[in-house]
Amino acid sequence: MMILSLPLALTLRFPSSLPILRRHSRYGISLRPPPLRATFSAAAPETHNSSKKQEKLITPRSQDFNAWYLDIIANAELADYGPVRGTMVIRPYGYAIWESIQDYLNRKFKDTGHSNMYFPQFIPYSFIEKEASHVEGFSPELALVTIGGGKELEEKLVVRPTSETIVNHMFTQWINSYRDLPLLINQWANVTRWEMRTKPFVRTLEFLWQEGHTAHATPEEAENEAIQMIDIYTKFAYEQAAIPVIAGRKSKVETFAGACKTYTIEAMMGDKKALQAGTSHNLGQNFSRAFGTQFLDENGQRQHVWQTSWAISTRFIGGIIMTHGDDAGLMLPPKVAPVQVVIVPIWKKDDEKTAVLKATSSVKETLQAAGIRVKLDDSDQRTPGWKFNFWEMKGVPLRIEIGPRDVSSGSVVISRRDVPGKQGKVFGVSMDPPILEAFVKDNLDAIQSSLLERAIAFRDSNIVDVSSYDDLKAAISQGKWARGPWSASNEDELKVKEETGATIRCFPFEQPQGTKRCLMTGDPAEEVAIFAKSY
Amino acid sequence: MMILSLPLALTLRFPSSLPILRRHSRYGISLRPPPLRATFSAAAPETHNSSKKQEKLITPRSQDFNAWYLDIIANAELADYGPVRGTMVIRPYGYAIWESIQDYLNRKFKDTGHSNMYFPQFIPYSFIEKEASHVEGFSPELALVTIGGGKELEEKLVVRPTSETIVNHMFTQWINSYRDLPLLINQWANVTRWEMRTKPFVRTLEFLWQEGHTAHATPEEAENEAIQMIDIYTKFAYEQAAIPVIAGRKSKVETFAGACKTYTIEAMMGDKKALQAGTSHNLGQNFSRAFGTQFLDENGQRQHVWQTSWAISTRFIGGIIMTHGDDAGLMLPPKVAPVQVVIVPIWKKDDEKTAVLKATSSVKETLQAAGIRVKLDDSDQRTPGWKFNFWEMKGVPLRIEIGPRDVSSGSVVISRRDVPGKQGKVFGVSMDPPILEAFVKDNLDAIQSSLLERAIAFRDSNIVDVSSYDDLKAAISQGKWARGPWSASNEDELKVKEETGATIRCFPFEQPQGTKRCLMTGDPAEEVAIFAKSY
Repeated sequence: MMILSLPLALTLRFPSSLPILRRHSRYGISLRPPPLRATFSAAAPETHNSSKKQEKLITPRSQDFNAWYLDIIANAELADYGPVRGTMVIRPYGYAIWESIQDYLNRKFKDTGHSNMYFPQFIPYSFIEKEASHVEGFSPELALVTIGGGKELEEKLVVRPTSETIVNHMFTQWINSYRDLPLLINQWANVTRWEMRTKPFVRTLEFLWQEGHTAHATPEEAENEAIQMIDIYTKFAYEQAAIPVIAGRKSKVETFAGACKTYTIEAMMGDKKALQAGTSHNLGQNFSRAFGTQFLDENGQRQHVWQTSWAISTRFIGGIIMTHGDDAGLMLPPKVAPVQVVIVPIWKKDDEKTAVLKATSSVKETLQAAGIRVKLDDSDQRTPGWKFNFWEMKGVPLRIEIGPRDVSSGSVVISRRDVPGKQGKVFGVSMDPPILEAFVKDNLDAIQSSLLERAIAFRDSNIVDVSSYDDLKAAISQGKWARGPWSASNEDELKVKEETGATIRCFPFEQPQGTKRCLMTGDPAEEVAIFAKSY
Repeated sequence: MMILSLPLALTLRFPSSLPILRRHSRYGISLRPPPLRATFSAAAPETHNSSKKQEKLITPRSQDFNAWYLDIIANAELADYGPVRGTMVIRPYGYAIWESIQDYLNRKFKDTGHSNMYFPQFIPYSFIEKEASHVEGFSPELALVTIGGGKELEEKLVVRPTSETIVNHMFTQWINSYRDLPLLINQWANVTRWEMRTKPFVRTLEFLWQEGHTAHATPEEAENEAIQMIDIYTKFAYEQAAIPVIAGRKSKVETFAGACKTYTIEAMMGDKKALQAGTSHNLGQNFSRAFGTQFLDENGQRQHVWQTSWAISTRFIGGIIMTHGDDAGLMLPPKVAPVQVVIVPIWKKDDEKTAVLKATSSVKETLQAAGIRVKLDDSDQRTPGWKFNFWEMKGVPLRIEIGPRDVSSGSVVISRRDVPGKQGKVFGVSMDPPILEAFVKDNLDAIQSSLLERAIAFRDSNIVDVSSYDDLKAAISQGKWARGPWSASNEDELKVKEETGATIRCFPFEQPQGTKRCLMTGDPAEEVAIFAKSY
């Protein structure tokens, strides 16, 4: 293991693809200037000490959370800026996280009877205007196609910001009788919202999401569906992403444009700001009335259908980064990690190399056969120390090191990403396949649980129960979440936003017992609300 | 089995979702009028004979191939028209075929070292202009976003028709040294081409596809990659879709706008027209020169990368329909069929129902456990005969019928979709799980092979070897494909197109031995080309 303490020399073989800081990118519609190689050369002088260099690449989280976030995205190669202002290229490592989100949700959607399909992204402008609050909510953010095939179009086309309108247009054609209900569909698609302040993953002009759309014969069924889907999202957040979201109902002010009720999962990021990580809407008959989506009930009466829609987007990846990451970089929950285990071979002399590489290959095969996502980094262009830092920065949950002595003893060294230093390191784990497999699986499970527990502890220590507006203001000014009884008006809610920057994130499903008095008015309040600043 | 011979009564329970003929739809940018229910009522009078009715729903293939195609798409619920001219809604049954295409190709792409990622769909207009032949090929078909967030944009944005330009813009930032190569990526995305003459699946304003993009250090590597990918497509077409495509190289005239060479797979549809079902382009350095995508080679010299791109789209679904379908409807190769086996219970008296449904459920579980995609149609709103026709029309490869007598004898009746009438029907297949499972699997394999063999025979009987232009004209006027030696000019090629409507589909990889003389000029020719009319 001697080599581990060597200075991590940056040589000529410093990887040319090492990403650079990009947060000062112009981010304009015109192309960014092509300074990459110049900048790169500046960022990677050939005779530098990589250890210091690598630390410098990521701004400490405590120093500047936003800079830290953007540094991680660039350095871990999760995403890059597109040429058009506010757009984002999702790079393979970031996209692989999205694929693991898709795999899980797709299964859950199908298990609950939903089918995937695909609606066109171009929506006639007139559709958007049909539902009054919908147009009010979305019209400032639309991208419009006005020219097609070289000609000015008669009617402008909206590039979908969401699909309720076109879905209802089609549902109206497909639904005739109660026997066609419930109609349960989902689509995986790109959507466009012309946002002014963008941030990779969290808010981009174009993003990827799934949007579920359902139609039901009764309001009860629609309500059950909306609740079922927010429950699926909640379970996903806890069990896969290790994010202890708080699920609840949005206030009227914060309800989706066109919905009767919006359910949400709200996550606390590392800077204690809230991220709305998924929503499920009970649309009532708002869209079915606007689009005439009717069915003949069992008594032969025509009725408007009751609907829901629900979505999770690539924003969730931003949530994972900002929940678990630390100064060393990304930290990925094993269940969503594209690479769960990285194997780093260590050798000094060439005669050690063969035996070490043989052992690493065999360990790789063992783990792969056990269904574990494993990467063997056997490139000889970087030092082991460089690789340790690199894969830590990429957030890989477990690292296996194998050197000549390990080969002799038939064992490996295993380090946990979530426990720094010696504490997270176990020496002498047997290479014997059943033992190694069990050890790795147990540790992946342990990391998964530990990330969730840590996030729960962080969340709970940063939510303050408040009973007055002064309490609320104090909590928010400390950057915390405030939870208190609320039955005041929309105007009061907007006043809180104006004066503190915080909004009602939700009325949580989990409510304390007992009578309550509104923190603002002192009137009786049935529920507590959570207030926080948010992304 | 008595009930099978009963007239298939259309009752009040005629399914309200039964699709209707739509090929006369206005297909305009404005909404189609909402005549659905009226039309539906007309199409499904309550006292009609469903057997005749259902036949009438699908135009015979021999009578009007195009009408037949559109009828299948509507009746099998594969797709519907979107509200904007030329757009298409892919319905769950059609989308499930796409998902099976995705599953297979995604695995093959990853096995060959490609990673998925995602590029923004909005491309600055100036990008498109950078590669001369690219802009010439695509500019007539562009959809342009000119307004965003309520404001006129400074630079128009192209809604991607394909992504070579934006990919190269990003590759230029990511590629620095030979160590960054090869760069092998793929994306699953929607693309937009403002086509004038549209047809569901075959040519729509917006479609779904995968587009692979790679960069290499040498022209040989790029060529190998382009060939590898057309080989993967060819294998997919033969082994999954049972479509005996002819793989080859496009003529210069037909090469992709911006490519050095285009490889293609060409499929013969049921009307003998050719469908270009997938392409793989060797882009050479065309885009890397236009975008300055360079790398430092091992000798420290700056060079432009060598590139490929390759794509298969939802058009392939059109190819499956038009290769295998018949007058009864869709016929799906088992490997891409969303439902491989449909089980139809048959009973007359209520006391038979319980036993029959118990048997069908148990058979369903047996097959599901064996990994077979199975659907149990136990609705009591339709007659068994109606269900037979319906699932035949949906192209399900195997049908299992279970009635009271079958329950008594512990056996089932199995019918093949591809062999009509009694010949395709086997009585008395044991319900015993291992026997039934083996029988079903063997039959699915047999259907898969049989569809391919039939398509090969059809293809081969409709390709004519020609040695003169007169031969060629005769073959094309008979609606056939003409295969003959070709070394004439681009002008001659365009003349053929003008005079016969046929184009060179490809110079097939499989070439006859021996010296050849160009069918047009009599000059020596190294290769034969295939001419055909195409979609």
